[in-house]
Amino acid sequence: MFSSETTLRVRYAETDQMGYVYYGNYATYYEVARVEALRLIGLSYKLFEDNGIMMPVLNLHCKYHKPAKYDDLLTIKTTIKKLPSVRIQFFYAVYNELGVLLNEGETTLVCIDMKTGRPCGSPKILIEKISEYFKL
Amino acid sequence: MFSSETTLRVRYAETDQMGYVYYGNYATYYEVARVEALRLIGLSYKLFEDNGIMMPVLNLHCKYHKPAKYDDLLTIKTTIKKLPSVRIQFFYAVYNELGVLLNEGETTLVCIDMKTGRPCGSPKILIEKISEYFKL
Amino acid sequence: MFSSETTLRVRYAETDQMGYVYYGNYATYYEVARVEALRLIGLSYKLFEDNGIMMPVLNLHCKYHKPAKYDDLLTIKTTIKKLPSVRIQFFYAVYNELGVLLNEGETTLVCIDMKTGRPCGSPKILIEKISEYFKL
Amino acid sequence: MFSSETTLRVRYAETDQMGYVYYGNYATYYEVARVEALRLIGLSYKLFEDNGIMMPVLNLHCKYHKPAKYDDLLTIKTTIKKLPSVRIQFFYAVYNELGVLLNEGETTLVCIDMKTGRPCGSPKILIEKISEYFKL
Repeated sequence: MFSSETTLRVRYAETDQMGYVYYGNYATYYEVARVEALRLIGLSYKLFEDNGIMMPVLNLHCKYHKPAKYDDLLTIKTTIKKLPSVRIQFFYAVYNELGVLLNEGETTLVCIDMKTGRPCGSPKILIEKISEYFKL
Repeated sequence: MFSSETTLRVRYAETDQMGYVYYGNYATYYEVARVEALRLIGLSYKLFEDNGIMMPVLNLHCKYHKPAKYDDLLTIKTTIKKLPSVRIQFFYAVYNELGVLLNEGETTLVCIDMKTGRPCGSPKILIEKISEYFKL
Repeated sequence: MFSSETTLRVRYAETDQMGYVYYGNYATYYEVARVEALRLIGLSYKLFEDNGIMMPVLNLHCKYHKPAKYDDLLTIKTTIKKLPSVRIQFFYAVYNELGVLLNEGETTLVCIDMKTGRPCGSPKILIEKISEYFKL
Repeated sequence: MFSSETTLRVRYAETDQMGYVYYGNYATYYEVARVEALRLIGLSYKLFEDNGIMMPVLNLHCKYHKPAKYDDLLTIKTTIKKLPSVRIQFFYAVYNELGVLLNEGETTLVCIDMKTGRPCGSPKILIEKISEYFKL
């Protein structure tokens, strides 16, 4: 299992008139979280795209337990539970500064060869790096 | 069962560098779709809030079948399959102009009394209006 | 002078915790307004891009007179005061349903040949169509 | 003169199909920049709001020199050139990692007493803190 944490601060732009983070913005938080999780192990989503592999999202699920609010410094824990193949599944848990769990989510991404437009395997370097976390 | 359709056009702001609608923006499309669905039967989400009931989202699920693209005129079919109570569940299906199904989603909202901050029943007028669609 | 009007409804996603439309979202409203203004005279920004001309923004100016609010049905008046060349300047005035002027803005766009990455003249069809509004 | 720097990384959500940061998103970057500038000298915009003072934007101006791109680590230099009163003017300069100036902007905010809805002076603590940078 691979697990990683990143933090981000809620922007005013991301609130709505309820005074909550707008529910659609968690998708962006998850994006930041998975990209930073990869960066922490030396991987770059940008580099994947520059090398012809893009990873659109197939599936998104969010559970909203408690609202995140303006200026909250959120910690997002990102987890990969299964070794990536054509698809990569990320799990997210969003906590506020008090450690309260605000939100949980999951996304499934698929690797697409930008030349052919067809699904392809995950980049080798990604599988190599992630595999290390699945060894006994 | 209650069902309704609304259309909206994809904005440049909503695309990403893949040339697709960014995956988080479907949450906003669903918001537009459910608000317009209610408006079509004479209901106003704004009025609910003005009368002290807000409806934050508890759950979001999206399935991305094919990408929506810039300037697409999307049709979103919104469905309520169960009579609302404290919770209201909406289902969404997003089609492009050729009638191709691009995306499906679901949200569960909860009615909150803004004074107490506690869950409450759906507004009477909402139940009345929606009930008509559940009669034999 | 060319002038045109379009309407759009404020989305919940576009509000912030002040209960106002977030100040950055007017840029998106201006985008919708200028694209719809062109569509009304038979022009398509999408088609320009499909034909290798993109029009990034060089300059943005917004004046916020009064806040737009959730569910407001806004009318945006878009004006072109000078015949486009390499640059096109759009002026915007945003009104609520009572006809109150909420916001004024201006954007300058530049035409870029996507092959060369260099500025180029406005598409001929755009100049032709707009010219009709500048004849005596 | 008060001046401060903050960094932020461009999110995928913030790009558009040109592969650039969407022009409206700089307003959000400026918001982050001014809030972090204040935080660096011990001030909190959130605390101002919690104490009944909000600061809506009156004026926004952006000049787009070169596009910011996905995953760019931007540095935003925020400057206050005049001592704040009822109005506070911020200037922004956005640089990429190579130190190239991508974008310049300016916002004027006004202090509003949330109880009365009327303009009011800047919070004392803000004037005190900023004044230190204007002493000879």
